[in-house]
Amino acid sequence: MGWSDARARAVLREVFDTAVAAADPRVMLAGHLPEKPRGRCVVVGAGKSAAVMAQAVEAAWPDVDLAGLVVTRYGHAVPTRRIEVMQSSHPVPDANSELAARRILASVAGLGPDDMVLALISGGGSALMALPAEGLTLADKQAINKALLASGATISEMNCVRKHLSAIKGGRLAAAAAPARVVTLAISDVPGDDPAVIASGPTVPDPTSFADARALLARFAITPAPAIAARLAQDADETPKPGSLAHATFRMIATPAMALAAAAGAARRAGLAPLILGDALEGESREMGTVLAGIARSIASHGQPLAAPALLLSGGETTVSIGAGGAGRGGRNTEFLLGLAVALQGHGGIWAIAGDTDGIDGTEDAAGAIVAPDTLARARAAGADPRGLLAAHDSYSLFDAIGDLVRTGPTLTNVNDIRAILVS
Amino acid sequence: MGWSDARARAVLREVFDTAVAAADPRVMLAGHLPEKPRGRCVVVGAGKSAAVMAQAVEAAWPDVDLAGLVVTRYGHAVPTRRIEVMQSSHPVPDANSELAARRILASVAGLGPDDMVLALISGGGSALMALPAEGLTLADKQAINKALLASGATISEMNCVRKHLSAIKGGRLAAAAAPARVVTLAISDVPGDDPAVIASGPTVPDPTSFADARALLARFAITPAPAIAARLAQDADETPKPGSLAHATFRMIATPAMALAAAAGAARRAGLAPLILGDALEGESREMGTVLAGIARSIASHGQPLAAPALLLSGGETTVSIGAGGAGRGGRNTEFLLGLAVALQGHGGIWAIAGDTDGIDGTEDAAGAIVAPDTLARARAAGADPRGLLAAHDSYSLFDAIGDLVRTGPTLTNVNDIRAILVS
Repeated sequence: MGWSDARARAVLREVFDTAVAAADPRVMLAGHLPEKPRGRCVVVGAGKSAAVMAQAVEAAWPDVDLAGLVVTRYGHAVPTRRIEVMQSSHPVPDANSELAARRILASVAGLGPDDMVLALISGGGSALMALPAEGLTLADKQAINKALLASGATISEMNCVRKHLSAIKGGRLAAAAAPARVVTLAISDVPGDDPAVIASGPTVPDPTSFADARALLARFAITPAPAIAARLAQDADETPKPGSLAHATFRMIATPAMALAAAAGAARRAGLAPLILGDALEGESREMGTVLAGIARSIASHGQPLAAPALLLSGGETTVSIGAGGAGRGGRNTEFLLGLAVALQGHGGIWAIAGDTDGIDGTEDAAGAIVAPDTLARARAAGADPRGLLAAHDSYSLFDAIGDLVRTGPTLTNVNDIRAILVS
Repeated sequence: MGWSDARARAVLREVFDTAVAAADPRVMLAGHLPEKPRGRCVVVGAGKSAAVMAQAVEAAWPDVDLAGLVVTRYGHAVPTRRIEVMQSSHPVPDANSELAARRILASVAGLGPDDMVLALISGGGSALMALPAEGLTLADKQAINKALLASGATISEMNCVRKHLSAIKGGRLAAAAAPARVVTLAISDVPGDDPAVIASGPTVPDPTSFADARALLARFAITPAPAIAARLAQDADETPKPGSLAHATFRMIATPAMALAAAAGAARRAGLAPLILGDALEGESREMGTVLAGIARSIASHGQPLAAPALLLSGGETTVSIGAGGAGRGGRNTEFLLGLAVALQGHGGIWAIAGDTDGIDGTEDAAGAIVAPDTLARARAAGADPRGLLAAHDSYSLFDAIGDLVRTGPTLTNVNDIRAILVS
């Protein structure tokens, strides 16, 4: 098989780092910028990557008349010179979320047709930039969000209601910027990469209506507070519909699929045949480990779904469901990896890496970890019980004990998780 | 995309039936028979398919001097003329298991070099044909089996101990048949298809030793009953080792991988590109549904891991873990399918079938079921709540309510489950 432990680990780390770099605005945003505007350029934006995206715009356009304001999560700011960076709260909006939204709307008012609004949108933007429609409060919106969550409504159903309670979402930011050209550069962390879903689509037409929102609340038997009911009862202040917003264009600059494609390229350069299973795989983390272990074994024993040496790639977010026993330390990627290692039982010739592209696997100081054929044996030798730690959701401790955590530091971007299994 | 509901369902049923036929001894055993023996042919065997395999031998060799005895599970007997069929208990052996083992050992004694022993081995054979070594009882063996199960020992570790407590397993049946030629025809229902694992390998050399068995019990801190300890303390009556049993050959006539290959052929004939993910995928049934839904979506949206129209195939056994809420009706295949349908949320153009190749998905009268894009909508229209029934492990009721159960009747063979997802 010819694959040493050191070589396998180095290739996996290279694959992961390549995927993260493909989602890093500092690396790739410049290549997606439109032609420079003739007039002014107002940069606005919201999301966990908003500040680093603004920084990348400043670096790429040193000679453009840039101004504007982006809002990111507390702790995600980076130094900028011309574009102001605000910080607000995620996942629950705070007063800064509302202040940022008001100031962003104000910043795009009164522009001319030669001006450009550059909107930098990434995950988390919906909470970080939140402006209730006239007559509503953030508390009103939070109450109805809670009721929708409990009802089992899908994300697109919740977004229909949200957009009709907002003064900035569902395309309203783009509408406010007319007649200036609006160019949105977006990073997707949502399954399906729907532009209308990322940050609730402030620059994207909204196919849903007030009537749809009313019908949804009726279907889920939700009785809204009087202020919400009054807002939804009128049909005049409708969101921009598909076909409108002709002055606005949308470019996806980083998605889970793009990161996986970059990872696949790194695999090929290392002599591995890549197979991308999907960019939005979901499910319980440890069970994902068991299922993918079965596919890896099949590559090793039958050459199916493809012949070794191969790299099995997937993206998306798995879930850790905490039972009555409570949780130890460890995020969804390390739990996936421990589930994988337990299912593989030391199978020779199989290594894996998994990590969150934002550099933070859960609440801990690691992006993820690496699994090798001797992971379980070394863990036991270090006094760590693999099955016990898996049951206790304490996968972090196991990989910490054997020195196999992967630490990148916060990357300030996010295209969800990357999982790569090397079958030599 | 040109796939009608009726066409998709018909193709999926054809794929499943083709997989089952590839594992049916009545269809394919004859093609695996060796040259007819010059002398007598004693047919022995154990497993859930032993009777139907014996029937197939009789049909294929009307002119051979056949005699012998096979043992199958209660209810799995079929009419035979020359080979006797006994029935015993599974998964816990009974007195008939021991009687069958004694009579089978006696039937292969005293044969000559021109005679042949044809051993028909399939899943369940370990319990159905059980003979404790001299000085031990079935109760002794059951007690140590229980302790090993509780210890977390792997299947191969448990088999090491079992083979050294048995008078027929671990190659001893083949040793007893010498100098007659021994030809084993086997159906595999174990991950990895290891001949030494199916029915504990009565005709296959055993690489493990009494010393290994003693070390295992010590490692797992199991103190065996005095009779067991005395048996394991001696090294004289060792199992046949690799390199011995030169008079015995082994042919795998049906495996999960062979059934999947046949299913892939049916897919190609229907114009679908097949992708076999693996023949031994494991994990929680509903989570397997969520994970494979993500792969199916990726085929539909990105053409990865392959372009549509495609058929995603997998084998192996999933698991249904019953929580505190108890269980409704439904086996692992219908639970997988309901998990898949809930994750797909009515996604257009995707259908699926899953079933147990033995025709019995759990304890119910169905092999499995079919999922279509309108499965959830039709279930709700029929008054069935998909998420509620999934939580209650009552998937059978949902597919029963909408008439989408797949019923084949008991097939008398078993190469585990077949799952096929059609992305049009």
